[in-house]
Amino acid sequence: MNDRKRFPKDEGKFHKRENTAKPAPVEEDENRLEGRNAVTEALNAHRRIDKIFVAEGSTDRSLARLVAMAKEQGAVVVYTDRRKLDFMSQSHAHQGIIAMAAAHEYATLDDVLSRAEEKGENPLIILCDELTDPHNLGAILRTAECAGAHGVVIPKRRGVGLTSTVAKASAGAIEYMPVVRVTNMAQTIDELKNRGVWIYGTAADGAEDLYKTDLTGPAAIVIGNEGDGMSRLVSQKCDFKISIPMRGQISSLNASAAAAIMLYEALHQRRDK
Amino acid sequence: MNDRKRFPKDEGKFHKRENTAKPAPVEEDENRLEGRNAVTEALNAHRRIDKIFVAEGSTDRSLARLVAMAKEQGAVVVYTDRRKLDFMSQSHAHQGIIAMAAAHEYATLDDVLSRAEEKGENPLIILCDELTDPHNLGAILRTAECAGAHGVVIPKRRGVGLTSTVAKASAGAIEYMPVVRVTNMAQTIDELKNRGVWIYGTAADGAEDLYKTDLTGPAAIVIGNEGDGMSRLVSQKCDFKISIPMRGQISSLNASAAAAIMLYEALHQRRDK
Repeated sequence: MNDRKRFPKDEGKFHKRENTAKPAPVEEDENRLEGRNAVTEALNAHRRIDKIFVAEGSTDRSLARLVAMAKEQGAVVVYTDRRKLDFMSQSHAHQGIIAMAAAHEYATLDDVLSRAEEKGENPLIILCDELTDPHNLGAILRTAECAGAHGVVIPKRRGVGLTSTVAKASAGAIEYMPVVRVTNMAQTIDELKNRGVWIYGTAADGAEDLYKTDLTGPAAIVIGNEGDGMSRLVSQKCDFKISIPMRGQISSLNASAAAAIMLYEALHQRRDK
Repeated sequence: MNDRKRFPKDEGKFHKRENTAKPAPVEEDENRLEGRNAVTEALNAHRRIDKIFVAEGSTDRSLARLVAMAKEQGAVVVYTDRRKLDFMSQSHAHQGIIAMAAAHEYATLDDVLSRAEEKGENPLIILCDELTDPHNLGAILRTAECAGAHGVVIPKRRGVGLTSTVAKASAGAIEYMPVVRVTNMAQTIDELKNRGVWIYGTAADGAEDLYKTDLTGPAAIVIGNEGDGMSRLVSQKCDFKISIPMRGQISSLNASAAAAIMLYEALHQRRDK
């Protein structure tokens, strides 16, 4: 799998960026569980919970027990003003707790790398750096599946998870494309590097032209946030900064279009190698 | 411009398709004008109206005058049940008439071809065959602009027009990318062929591999409807049927992802020719 030598780290200019990522907007979602009973049942059934929102300052012991269970099972716990819970609630009977269940199970990085190995292919992975639009994430899953990528990595805290909107936008790809949810994208990048995978970022001021970049080795491609691009830390860890050629007046592609162009260039190079 | 010889028409299998295209769903839109005054003002100001919906069986003379004006200015007139108008109405005071104004002016096919000529480039055009999702059309405008395409053609009756949702999804590209709205896509294809442009369709059973297809000549790429692909007549008129390689379990890309992959392959070939 390590058939390419690692190059010295690209020390090019980095993408300027304020850390202003907003929480993903709350959307209509059949995976939103409201009230103690619904959340208890889901946790007992070991259904994957991405996030739970709990009323701030609550002293209720049954809520505290649910929070402990949810944490143990890997959920992110967000303490929230009760008025925000009221606003989020569809049933208007949230009892101080709303959980966001994942529309699909998550995979591990090992699953993704094994998948590539089993197929005898160099890994091709997409790292989504704080995407907030569920349609973009769904579209990326769909294109990644079509292009034969081995997995998609998303962050646990910032950015959108596998909601039902993502599932719908993926047009079924969510069933086939392993999605890994990680606590710390920068650490994941280090782990991928240790395992011989090259990290390709995208940037308007990227040093490498997409069509002159070799994507046939083990590769992870970072897709930045819709508004701000890659976060600073992730940007610094990229081995290469790729620029997609631009011929028009507007200066940036949509995240899912950029992903489609790079995934298919990788497929093209790998197939015709 | 005609630096490539036309090949005999590809007689491959055609995409099966029932003609079941539904009207575009009515969306929240600041370009929806309701009531006689609003529509009269817009028509007097020669604002571009895509479509007007008029209450069926109305004998009102002022409505009839507005319909005549709108038709004269190129709008499509749709006679509709009054209950549908009630349902579409945001103001609930539509007075039997609702007009859909375009978020941007339309161009002509001549504009598009001159644009290519002025730049000394072979035309690169996208033909949208009955796209119904405004986000897809907006995304295609954005990618087309970035890839240096010369224009996008959409049909007048079926499919979505330049609504404000399209404008927003285009991220500003609507200001730069000429969009031509045509009555009959098949006739437009004939006209393009007469002017030396090759027509490239996409199909799962396409005869030509994208990466073995020469896209450096004058080219118009057809993007089919989200659900059904290209319409039969348009499909029959294509010079080439391209297939984008598929490596996964699901069998189709999103319309805007397919457009991105083909537009950038064209840019790649043209640049590195």
